[in-house]
Amino acid sequence: MLGYGDRVLVYIDDKRKYLITLRMNGILGTDKGYIKHSDIVGRRYGEAVYTSRGFKAYLLEPLPRDLLYGFKRITQVIYPKDSSYMMYLSGIGPGSRVLEAGVGTGFLSLTIAHIIGGSGRLYGVDNNPRHLETARNNLESADVGDRIILIHGDVRDSGMFRREYIDAVFYDIPDPWNALETAYHVLKPSRPLIVYVPTINQVEKTVLAMEKSGCFIEVGGLEILLREYSVSENATRPRTLMVGHTGYIVHGRKIVSDECVLR
Amino acid sequence: MLGYGDRVLVYIDDKRKYLITLRMNGILGTDKGYIKHSDIVGRRYGEAVYTSRGFKAYLLEPLPRDLLYGFKRITQVIYPKDSSYMMYLSGIGPGSRVLEAGVGTGFLSLTIAHIIGGSGRLYGVDNNPRHLETARNNLESADVGDRIILIHGDVRDSGMFRREYIDAVFYDIPDPWNALETAYHVLKPSRPLIVYVPTINQVEKTVLAMEKSGCFIEVGGLEILLREYSVSENATRPRTLMVGHTGYIVHGRKIVSDECVLR
Amino acid sequence: MLGYGDRVLVYIDDKRKYLITLRMNGILGTDKGYIKHSDIVGRRYGEAVYTSRGFKAYLLEPLPRDLLYGFKRITQVIYPKDSSYMMYLSGIGPGSRVLEAGVGTGFLSLTIAHIIGGSGRLYGVDNNPRHLETARNNLESADVGDRIILIHGDVRDSGMFRREYIDAVFYDIPDPWNALETAYHVLKPSRPLIVYVPTINQVEKTVLAMEKSGCFIEVGGLEILLREYSVSENATRPRTLMVGHTGYIVHGRKIVSDECVLR
Amino acid sequence: MLGYGDRVLVYIDDKRKYLITLRMNGILGTDKGYIKHSDIVGRRYGEAVYTSRGFKAYLLEPLPRDLLYGFKRITQVIYPKDSSYMMYLSGIGPGSRVLEAGVGTGFLSLTIAHIIGGSGRLYGVDNNPRHLETARNNLESADVGDRIILIHGDVRDSGMFRREYIDAVFYDIPDPWNALETAYHVLKPSRPLIVYVPTINQVEKTVLAMEKSGCFIEVGGLEILLREYSVSENATRPRTLMVGHTGYIVHGRKIVSDECVLR
Repeated sequence: MLGYGDRVLVYIDDKRKYLITLRMNGILGTDKGYIKHSDIVGRRYGEAVYTSRGFKAYLLEPLPRDLLYGFKRITQVIYPKDSSYMMYLSGIGPGSRVLEAGVGTGFLSLTIAHIIGGSGRLYGVDNNPRHLETARNNLESADVGDRIILIHGDVRDSGMFRREYIDAVFYDIPDPWNALETAYHVLKPSRPLIVYVPTINQVEKTVLAMEKSGCFIEVGGLEILLREYSVSENATRPRTLMVGHTGYIVHGRKIVSDECVLR
Repeated sequence: MLGYGDRVLVYIDDKRKYLITLRMNGILGTDKGYIKHSDIVGRRYGEAVYTSRGFKAYLLEPLPRDLLYGFKRITQVIYPKDSSYMMYLSGIGPGSRVLEAGVGTGFLSLTIAHIIGGSGRLYGVDNNPRHLETARNNLESADVGDRIILIHGDVRDSGMFRREYIDAVFYDIPDPWNALETAYHVLKPSRPLIVYVPTINQVEKTVLAMEKSGCFIEVGGLEILLREYSVSENATRPRTLMVGHTGYIVHGRKIVSDECVLR
Repeated sequence: MLGYGDRVLVYIDDKRKYLITLRMNGILGTDKGYIKHSDIVGRRYGEAVYTSRGFKAYLLEPLPRDLLYGFKRITQVIYPKDSSYMMYLSGIGPGSRVLEAGVGTGFLSLTIAHIIGGSGRLYGVDNNPRHLETARNNLESADVGDRIILIHGDVRDSGMFRREYIDAVFYDIPDPWNALETAYHVLKPSRPLIVYVPTINQVEKTVLAMEKSGCFIEVGGLEILLREYSVSENATRPRTLMVGHTGYIVHGRKIVSDECVLR
Repeated sequence: MLGYGDRVLVYIDDKRKYLITLRMNGILGTDKGYIKHSDIVGRRYGEAVYTSRGFKAYLLEPLPRDLLYGFKRITQVIYPKDSSYMMYLSGIGPGSRVLEAGVGTGFLSLTIAHIIGGSGRLYGVDNNPRHLETARNNLESADVGDRIILIHGDVRDSGMFRREYIDAVFYDIPDPWNALETAYHVLKPSRPLIVYVPTINQVEKTVLAMEKSGCFIEVGGLEILLREYSVSENATRPRTLMVGHTGYIVHGRKIVSDECVLR
């Protein structure tokens, strides 16, 4: 039974989804009419109410993917098609310890925080205090602030972390090839560094720097494309418009070798 | 320090990766020479040994994604590009309860088991006893047998499960449109059904059946493409050959409605 | 030297291209200012003039691909990525005789007319008189009316054409599987039927009908994707937005066989 | 009625296509049995004969696209998905005059020669005499030698051609950015330079060189992808394997400007 303080994803259609927290006297206004929070209280997840203009609105329990609707966005965000494959490559799961640099809006941090659960630990680094402030608010609103330590700093500074105890490192920074030393120092042997970059030039620089260092193997670069379909009886086809590019993913795994040289 | 009984991914190159468990007198034979298990004992993950023919072989700690190399394959498997996005859509995390039908080789089960962790529960259904037997062996070899209950049965039988306590349902069966009733009965309201099918005709049938039932919203069909790059200094380009198709993903979320009619 | 009556593609930027015919007292108005036709007269192709607001505008000799800018559009058009591959499949060249059904706006007709040249002949069929009227105007404005015979009729009527003298048939109609007989009758043996359809269901129906008839070989279905790049120094990447789908191409070649049965 | 000297594409299936010229006592040997040329004489295009092992073989009149099967290949060839779009971009048609550099095997030359017809003229340049020798044989075997002038030389030498009379220039050379001067000199104003390169680094260099020169507008880089479908009743899907990359296309049009500076 929904009550004040509960979070609800109000779903009218695929373009009208609203993540709200039920408040006394609260009103959700939309271009399809408004809904009083008090009309939602007492309902159950999965049920529907009607807007003032008579449109059906479903009351959904938010999934992790819905929490992003509540985020304030200040940077380009990593799309789920990319972040989900990055999770796979990283091998992280419940209890993992993760370093992320380039926290930005905190989208990727939320995804990581969900995967590692309450027993995991995410160290989130950003060199922009304003980003960290926004990320902190976003992540606290998603109730995952407990497992995240946000740090103001620059991962290109190799003295930043030195202990080998991290299960996966994620970089979303402009020049990841300048921050390989930090990733190498904190990663347990065999564990992956996962990098997200928007241009192919960055892919080339990062892959070559990782390969030439002699400190990583299984190094690769790739991209993920998502194609949505418009499904109708006897008239099914891909959607006309598509996101043709977001970014590339570069990845590799730490090895222990005399030939490993960074900087 | 590696000892007998430990699992190691022996990595020679991207086409030569071997998942082994160290055994007394064990020998790993490859077309690049052999390696005695005894030469691996006492090393640490991340270090390298040499094959009898002088090729370097890295000793990696297996990530969840490496465990698949140890699996016996008896069915088509779902590729990571697809399964990782399915995990995202499902919203599952540590502790989730999941129903999967069409267990087959158990690839997807392993991915789910890793995400839900030891506190989660996966009910895996298959109507082919031979599939279940293979899946059981595969999943036990990957040390996730504890959280998985394998069940011989047919999810198209609507009486199979009736309690509403599952966080996500995954179907990899030929006619998912005939099994919507079971998914609907076990899912908590708001929670998703995720379907994997190889042909576009199955996408059309599944999407239309879900939409027409009035029991699901946010219904969609999509596909994921992965493009790998060949990176060289000043000569970067996508790989020449590509997997052009594996399967499609269909998804939707359960709602509670008087208008919901199944069968 | 450009004079009145000449056609010019006025190019300000990739979103501002105007196909005009120079007229006494003519004025081209744009959101970047206007240009008097009299200011263009006396210039040469490739040179630039300035708009009233000081923007540079290049005077280009129209290529066939530019003529489309002058067309009145009344139907969905076939994109160049598709029509160019259809030309390749068809094998047509200078002097070819072609049948096209589903003329619509006349875009594909223009492409064909350009390839077959003045010694070729295009029979364009449409069952909608309004389409034919528009196509006629469009094609005359492009100076290729001489080699095109527009016919009001329905290619699903098998009695329409009966002589075997056509080098390639193009169909852009909703149910090409109902018009195989006409294509078969007019095609020279070995020559291709090329079909354009927006949905995958139409692909399936057309391919299966062609294969089952026993009258065509080398039957196939495919799609063409075009990905544009945003190129900058050290920051090159695909464009963010992409046309994810236009239509599919189905093709096959006529054979002579006792086993060929149509209808 | 087929006779000695005629060319025939013998089609057994999509992987067994043979381009032959009928010769007295000629025999076509295949892994599905042999066919005597004398058994083909007297048949008509479109009909079938049987191999010695009883497989049906269709006798097709070769289309331009089939002629490539008869070519000796000595270099990477440009795929039809790319060459057909390059034809579109170029705007060439019957009677066009074309310059092509990097003739190689002569595949693109054949495509161009077909489009321009007997009244067109193709100047094909290559700096490798062995390439020219092979291309000459290939093109003569395809009966288009009459309209092609093959030239041994280096288009990076700006003195090579100086007259402004070419309708389109095609480059398939490693460093097109070093050959812009020649293209500029020979092109009529407004006409396009079309470049084919395998790596993204070459795209970046070519586009930037064209843009910075101030001599070209409408400059762009793109790639074309072809996806084939496996069509079966109620089981249609894209083919599993796909050519994921061949090359990129760069294009632009010559303008006349005081600001144009090359070298």
